[in-house]
Amino acid sequence: MSLYPMTSNFVDVIMTGLDALSPYKTDLRIETDDMSTLMVGAPEPLFDAIRDLFAAAAKRPEHVTMHVTFSRGCPGEPDDPNCRCETLETAQDQSLTDRQTLAAEAVAQAPDLGVAIDLQFSLYVMGSGDHMDEIYGCIDFLKTSGTFHKSKNFCTRLRGDAGAVFETLRQAFLRFGPAEGHVTIDMTASANSPSLA
Amino acid sequence: MSLYPMTSNFVDVIMTGLDALSPYKTDLRIETDDMSTLMVGAPEPLFDAIRDLFAAAAKRPEHVTMHVTFSRGCPGEPDDPNCRCETLETAQDQSLTDRQTLAAEAVAQAPDLGVAIDLQFSLYVMGSGDHMDEIYGCIDFLKTSGTFHKSKNFCTRLRGDAGAVFETLRQAFLRFGPAEGHVTIDMTASANSPSLA
Repeated sequence: MSLYPMTSNFVDVIMTGLDALSPYKTDLRIETDDMSTLMVGAPEPLFDAIRDLFAAAAKRPEHVTMHVTFSRGCPGEPDDPNCRCETLETAQDQSLTDRQTLAAEAVAQAPDLGVAIDLQFSLYVMGSGDHMDEIYGCIDFLKTSGTFHKSKNFCTRLRGDAGAVFETLRQAFLRFGPAEGHVTIDMTASANSPSLA
Repeated sequence: MSLYPMTSNFVDVIMTGLDALSPYKTDLRIETDDMSTLMVGAPEPLFDAIRDLFAAAAKRPEHVTMHVTFSRGCPGEPDDPNCRCETLETAQDQSLTDRQTLAAEAVAQAPDLGVAIDLQFSLYVMGSGDHMDEIYGCIDFLKTSGTFHKSKNFCTRLRGDAGAVFETLRQAFLRFGPAEGHVTIDMTASANSPSLA
């Protein structure tokens, strides 16, 4: 995860964002270097933490963006017991239609954080012959999620309150692609862009 | 592709970068919205254009980062005749060892742009049972490329002159993973970070 404030005062904006991580520090392993921050943990605290960090920065007036790479099931990385996720474990026995319904319900129940954001992302499903079926199934869910803004080349654009938008992202990550497989997301969020004014 | 200058003067830095794209405008299709710029074309002008854009921004004093998603062989996107690439076409008949040798030679011949950058990226190979073999083969190439800085969780960190670093990236993208397959890269570059000082 990397936060990019488009202001000479960027260190202050980053510190505002990092303050929002405090409640999650017991549930997540967090390591920062000069390019990005590694966060390891279960999808519940992980997506909540990233959402709250970006929402805190986006409530300020400056234009700010964030890039995150999400990964689950990577064969090159060791298992971490902290990452256990019931949604993933139950998804193995659920049809694509059932998973689309559960994902939509989760987005409808997302909290309203009172901050509007834009987000675009690509979902990658590795090592599976039918990876495009899962991706098209995910796109069908996205189009009815209430946060869908438009399809773009190679990615999908969401728009709305940070609560609903990040819940849509979490559902896409957890409920599509094989439950035991290697799935990644390449995501960019943006707020307060002068190009939108 | 998105360029993120960490300065209140960010529009100026972005304009400096976009000027560097001028020589490539006949070879690439370029479309910009408020979040990112789509660039469609063959890997030769495409990687050169992205390299020159970032090098131009990085020669200024401000901290600047760039995020790029690269994609080839995506089944959901139409073929574009402008994207034809001889390196990819010949890679089908080459062993992993041969491809590693050719990739190393290309990096050794890269131009020196006189600007030091950091870059980290992940290579994704979709829809193939042995995708980790290609990724480990790519990592072996990276470690001897002269631009390798370190392995991180879920990505590889490069460091060096922009010329050699972006050539390493292009070789990783073109010579690993099935030549006809769906391969993507999730990449972040950084220059002039105060965290490095």
